[in-house]
Amino acid sequence: MRGLDLLPLDGIPMVAEGDDLCALILDAAAASGDTLADGDVLVVAQKIVSKTEGRLVRLADVEPTPRAESLAAETEKDPRVVQLILDESGEVLRARPGLIIVQHRLGMVMANAGIDASNISADGGKEFVLLLPLDPDASAARLRAELRRQAGVDVAIVISDSVGRAWRVGIVGIAIGAAGLPGVVDERGAPDLFGRPLLVTQTGLADEVASAASLLQGQGGQGRPVVRLRGLSWSAPEGTAADLVRPLEHDMFR
Amino acid sequence: MRGLDLLPLDGIPMVAEGDDLCALILDAAAASGDTLADGDVLVVAQKIVSKTEGRLVRLADVEPTPRAESLAAETEKDPRVVQLILDESGEVLRARPGLIIVQHRLGMVMANAGIDASNISADGGKEFVLLLPLDPDASAARLRAELRRQAGVDVAIVISDSVGRAWRVGIVGIAIGAAGLPGVVDERGAPDLFGRPLLVTQTGLADEVASAASLLQGQGGQGRPVVRLRGLSWSAPEGTAADLVRPLEHDMFR
Repeated sequence: MRGLDLLPLDGIPMVAEGDDLCALILDAAAASGDTLADGDVLVVAQKIVSKTEGRLVRLADVEPTPRAESLAAETEKDPRVVQLILDESGEVLRARPGLIIVQHRLGMVMANAGIDASNISADGGKEFVLLLPLDPDASAARLRAELRRQAGVDVAIVISDSVGRAWRVGIVGIAIGAAGLPGVVDERGAPDLFGRPLLVTQTGLADEVASAASLLQGQGGQGRPVVRLRGLSWSAPEGTAADLVRPLEHDMFR
Repeated sequence: MRGLDLLPLDGIPMVAEGDDLCALILDAAAASGDTLADGDVLVVAQKIVSKTEGRLVRLADVEPTPRAESLAAETEKDPRVVQLILDESGEVLRARPGLIIVQHRLGMVMANAGIDASNISADGGKEFVLLLPLDPDASAARLRAELRRQAGVDVAIVISDSVGRAWRVGIVGIAIGAAGLPGVVDERGAPDLFGRPLLVTQTGLADEVASAASLLQGQGGQGRPVVRLRGLSWSAPEGTAADLVRPLEHDMFR
């Protein structure tokens, strides 16, 4: 295959804690008339991973600290949600009404620590919010191993989320977890077409994979949380989504 | 079609100023066994657009100003390249040895104003550098119109470049020009799965298209500058890549 083929796996049901995501994906692939093959990449929306891992939090169970109360007043947010944002974060980079931008404990800079109240519960999202997986790279590795065990296929996994960006309008898909493919492809030093070494050639491969799948997933992976990508090749070693995180102190744009 | 199909159009030759990019693309499609169809999106690497538009600049023709000389000393860069960076830029956001980050006159925040010396000339890139197109959205619209005229097809165009990002490692494809599709899909207010209005749902569609194509183009669109994407649908009105630029003063991450 010279190109890429992306197929949404339809028929993934609403998931709950403890569901066997691997089995659900294999069922969806079969229902979509698809058979997973070695070398495929499965892009899985963060939300269904988080839900199966029990990362829904009931707001009534959250006791905000004075710091959260204060930041909630400043940003006009629910103090319990702010508490969860703080719990999930390292540094708070920016706070203003309606918006808290943090460095998530996983390293990503994102609004509201990636905590989302949309598509979470049928009661208006007032009662539950969903946190990111505890360790999305590990989640990806587990799902990959489980697909090998249950179906005998060697696929790569990208766990995707949609995030806002500095200086650009619109959210795009990024990889928050990855297994079986490089997060970053490091081509520093590879010759260009004229044999001259390229200077800056680290490519955010897993992020580009997540963005490609996002074209089919729609906002937040609403209706199509799993996309199968076929035809991608890479020469770099396998890595993780953590490879895509630039430490704040090394951020050349800062 | 339920999914997406991406195919690199092989056989695009080295291009020069004045070349008929439309004709070259149609030849490449034919040579790739592909026929462009209504609704396709063509992702075209910035470099071949810039070259056909005569945006190669001979460094010997550039006379650096004192400001450029000073910034060149600070950043250890060629003063003539720095002059071109300044000419192409609004604000200089960051300067340090080896790196100048600017807001390009087109609005994008990028290193070196998107000026690239790789893959430009066979003499080691010392003599020529390549600037971005004067107006990439207009370039995209022209190419789109020309494809309609020469081949009778209604395709969308994305002119792509690869850029570094704040807080993330690795460059990814973004749209610097677009025609025939939305740059940004604005789904603000659309209901989520439970009928509750989504709050933040502007999606950077054309950027995600560029990232998807970048998976096949490789660094800087070296060998495969044109990728045909089929199967994408959108409900938002057509826009431009300029829609993706967030004014610095509105940048919530700043």
